[in-house]
Amino acid sequence: MHNPQLNKDGDLQHLLTIEGLPKRIVMDILDTAESFVGISDREVKKVPLMRGKSVFNLFFENSTRTRTTFEIASKRLSADVINLNIQASSATKGESLLDTIDNLAAMHADMFVVRHASSGAPHLIARHLVETGQSHVHVVNAGDGRHAHPTQGLLDMYTIRHYKKDFTNLTVAIVGDILHSRVARSDIHALTTLGVPEIRAIAPRTLLPAGLDQMGVRVFTDINEGLKGVDVIIMLRLQNERMSGALLPSAQEFFKSYGLTPERLALAKPDAIVMHPGPMNRGVEIDSAVADGKQAVILPQVTFGIAVRMAVMSILASK
Amino acid sequence: MHNPQLNKDGDLQHLLTIEGLPKRIVMDILDTAESFVGISDREVKKVPLMRGKSVFNLFFENSTRTRTTFEIASKRLSADVINLNIQASSATKGESLLDTIDNLAAMHADMFVVRHASSGAPHLIARHLVETGQSHVHVVNAGDGRHAHPTQGLLDMYTIRHYKKDFTNLTVAIVGDILHSRVARSDIHALTTLGVPEIRAIAPRTLLPAGLDQMGVRVFTDINEGLKGVDVIIMLRLQNERMSGALLPSAQEFFKSYGLTPERLALAKPDAIVMHPGPMNRGVEIDSAVADGKQAVILPQVTFGIAVRMAVMSILASK
Amino acid sequence: MHNPQLNKDGDLQHLLTIEGLPKRIVMDILDTAESFVGISDREVKKVPLMRGKSVFNLFFENSTRTRTTFEIASKRLSADVINLNIQASSATKGESLLDTIDNLAAMHADMFVVRHASSGAPHLIARHLVETGQSHVHVVNAGDGRHAHPTQGLLDMYTIRHYKKDFTNLTVAIVGDILHSRVARSDIHALTTLGVPEIRAIAPRTLLPAGLDQMGVRVFTDINEGLKGVDVIIMLRLQNERMSGALLPSAQEFFKSYGLTPERLALAKPDAIVMHPGPMNRGVEIDSAVADGKQAVILPQVTFGIAVRMAVMSILASK
Repeated sequence: MHNPQLNKDGDLQHLLTIEGLPKRIVMDILDTAESFVGISDREVKKVPLMRGKSVFNLFFENSTRTRTTFEIASKRLSADVINLNIQASSATKGESLLDTIDNLAAMHADMFVVRHASSGAPHLIARHLVETGQSHVHVVNAGDGRHAHPTQGLLDMYTIRHYKKDFTNLTVAIVGDILHSRVARSDIHALTTLGVPEIRAIAPRTLLPAGLDQMGVRVFTDINEGLKGVDVIIMLRLQNERMSGALLPSAQEFFKSYGLTPERLALAKPDAIVMHPGPMNRGVEIDSAVADGKQAVILPQVTFGIAVRMAVMSILASK
Repeated sequence: MHNPQLNKDGDLQHLLTIEGLPKRIVMDILDTAESFVGISDREVKKVPLMRGKSVFNLFFENSTRTRTTFEIASKRLSADVINLNIQASSATKGESLLDTIDNLAAMHADMFVVRHASSGAPHLIARHLVETGQSHVHVVNAGDGRHAHPTQGLLDMYTIRHYKKDFTNLTVAIVGDILHSRVARSDIHALTTLGVPEIRAIAPRTLLPAGLDQMGVRVFTDINEGLKGVDVIIMLRLQNERMSGALLPSAQEFFKSYGLTPERLALAKPDAIVMHPGPMNRGVEIDSAVADGKQAVILPQVTFGIAVRMAVMSILASK
Repeated sequence: MHNPQLNKDGDLQHLLTIEGLPKRIVMDILDTAESFVGISDREVKKVPLMRGKSVFNLFFENSTRTRTTFEIASKRLSADVINLNIQASSATKGESLLDTIDNLAAMHADMFVVRHASSGAPHLIARHLVETGQSHVHVVNAGDGRHAHPTQGLLDMYTIRHYKKDFTNLTVAIVGDILHSRVARSDIHALTTLGVPEIRAIAPRTLLPAGLDQMGVRVFTDINEGLKGVDVIIMLRLQNERMSGALLPSAQEFFKSYGLTPERLALAKPDAIVMHPGPMNRGVEIDSAVADGKQAVILPQVTFGIAVRMAVMSILASK
């Protein structure tokens, strides 16, 4: 089946998922991001790469944090940004998703940054644009359901490369609610593409999806076993709504069994880095001593995230 | 009575309604819009005509779609745009409408784009600005109650001129809920001003306003009669809230009697165009086969709408 | 104790409160604002002083009016502005205030404009930024609880200086709900710093805070006594929620006892000016004849407010 993310020349047309994305494209994004990291330190943090381009942030699901990162990235590329919170607007007037998309495309949009609670919504939009010949509009998936969050996956890769240089000798552990996490899925695909030899998933059985073995992921239900000798620890956010339900006894119990404490961190390599996509639940999945400790690279992740989003957007806009 | 839209030189000071607007001004807007249609196709879709100007989108009634078109138009003219959703803000603090207006004018606003549920609110604001000598601020009506939606009327005229060249030999049918439609009112005034010889209104009796005869409009309650030989069909949106009330039996019944199907469209001239202000209710006022068919110019209307709004704003800002 | 607003060179690092702010800094802000008043009258109301800088409007409490003034000021300085309404966003995800701040700072923010219902929140943020070495981010307090609203205080001083030239021979009366007013507190500190010899507080006992005597303020419960011979009258807004409670009999009663009528205004000096921070409650704290009268300078306050905010932001950004 044709990969809808790539155009017929094999260039990036849309960023929908890291699954199936060629390694050369992932590397191109990371390399381009590197050139943008410096820009954020300059007096004038702007480049004219997207001047006069219209970026629409289409958030069908609220996420101020993610919307903000794309808004800043767009503005630093000199694009015009329009924020659309779609829950409240045309959806209530009964217009279909694709009619909304056609309308915005007719306004000569250049890019849609799409956040949606339903897995696959950005794909649906991208396929529709391709099928209707509206290839001047590029789609960036900013998180869809439990499916994918590719820019988060890419910024995680940027962060790992920044601190560890080489992917091919690493052991990376992903810890927490893997079952409901689009971040975990995107990270696993990216780590695999970049040749990480050992990926570990650490979680209680109730929060582990099926099929991790087939993806080449080693599963641990004991965090003390799973963290032994790892180079990178990616903590996941425990969603509030899961904390007192059928899947989990309580937030306190989760912390006792799976929270990242200094003692557990000591089981990893001495130079292991600790990552978290944010926002953190201190005292639930991560101890404050670790979150604020020397091995945490959680704030650099945020900084790199802006550069990675600038890279993705500028690469798409240049096609 | 003095036309508050024109200044003492007869130039456009505010755009409040198409009623009474001289033909030369309508034509000037359409001609200016034509020069902006090309800009949207360029790599850099920006012109510096309103650089440093402050445009306030004052939406007392929510309309993401219309607000978005004005926001894009402003940004492509290089203006600074401030979006104000006034329901939630100072209105709740008990400040009067005109105090709010005076305050924003004191911030050296250049333009207010006003959407309001009450007919006449933009007139009230414009008159107040004129009376208090604040003539540096221009008002654009972005839809007031059932009264007027002049930029929609103008973009409809642009669309008709684009496809039909000459207005003076056309038959134009407006179909649907004419009673509650500010779009229909604005279109009728514009078509009359531009010399369209035959304007038809097609609707059930309960959705027809009084006085159409005096406006020179031919009334049809039978859509099959009304569509015969027309050049242009303007479908109106049926408001959700009317669909099951005293005025209408049901959405299904409405579609049966007044929905635009391919069979009915065949009654019009073979090269007739189909317009709709959006958002469409597919299967209520329009069949999907028509909405997506070759005669539909609904998406071009959206594209032209940006250019028309850029034209109106840049003409006002140049005064 | 170290003043967290000033850096080690004694320059302004954050604007948190007028209390303790050296007179030279207040005067520098007013002088800088004067240079910006002219800009708003020009064709292109923009200067490139903050081009490429990222300003975050962090509004933990809704205030469209104040947010708008900072947004305009930022855009006229050519900054990129991101509006964050924090009630609805990460706060609901249980992230702590300081984690949110660290995150935004990691996006290379240059300035946080903070509005918060809790007194001291902007101080907390500023102290955290200083302690964690993130001194590239500047904090502007846009109103915190009952504590301070320094830019309102500064624009009030700008207005007084504009009309009265010299502070050292003035009598200034502040009238209304002084107990709950951060504006009153900021004004009293500013007037004291600038050497105003007589500051009067006029209010019913239930709306007077303790400690005014120690601040050098003369207290009046009779407005007719308090207004005698004053040069400047600063009316305060009566919060709706106070109007029918234990502290006040009713809005009508308040107007009868403390509303500023033309008769009462006549007790002041003939060239006295009337100020109000807005939004006004006409017929509650102020009579419309006064609000719209010749002595009112309420709209010039708004105009000067933009220039004062531009001054504060550009001074901070230049450090």
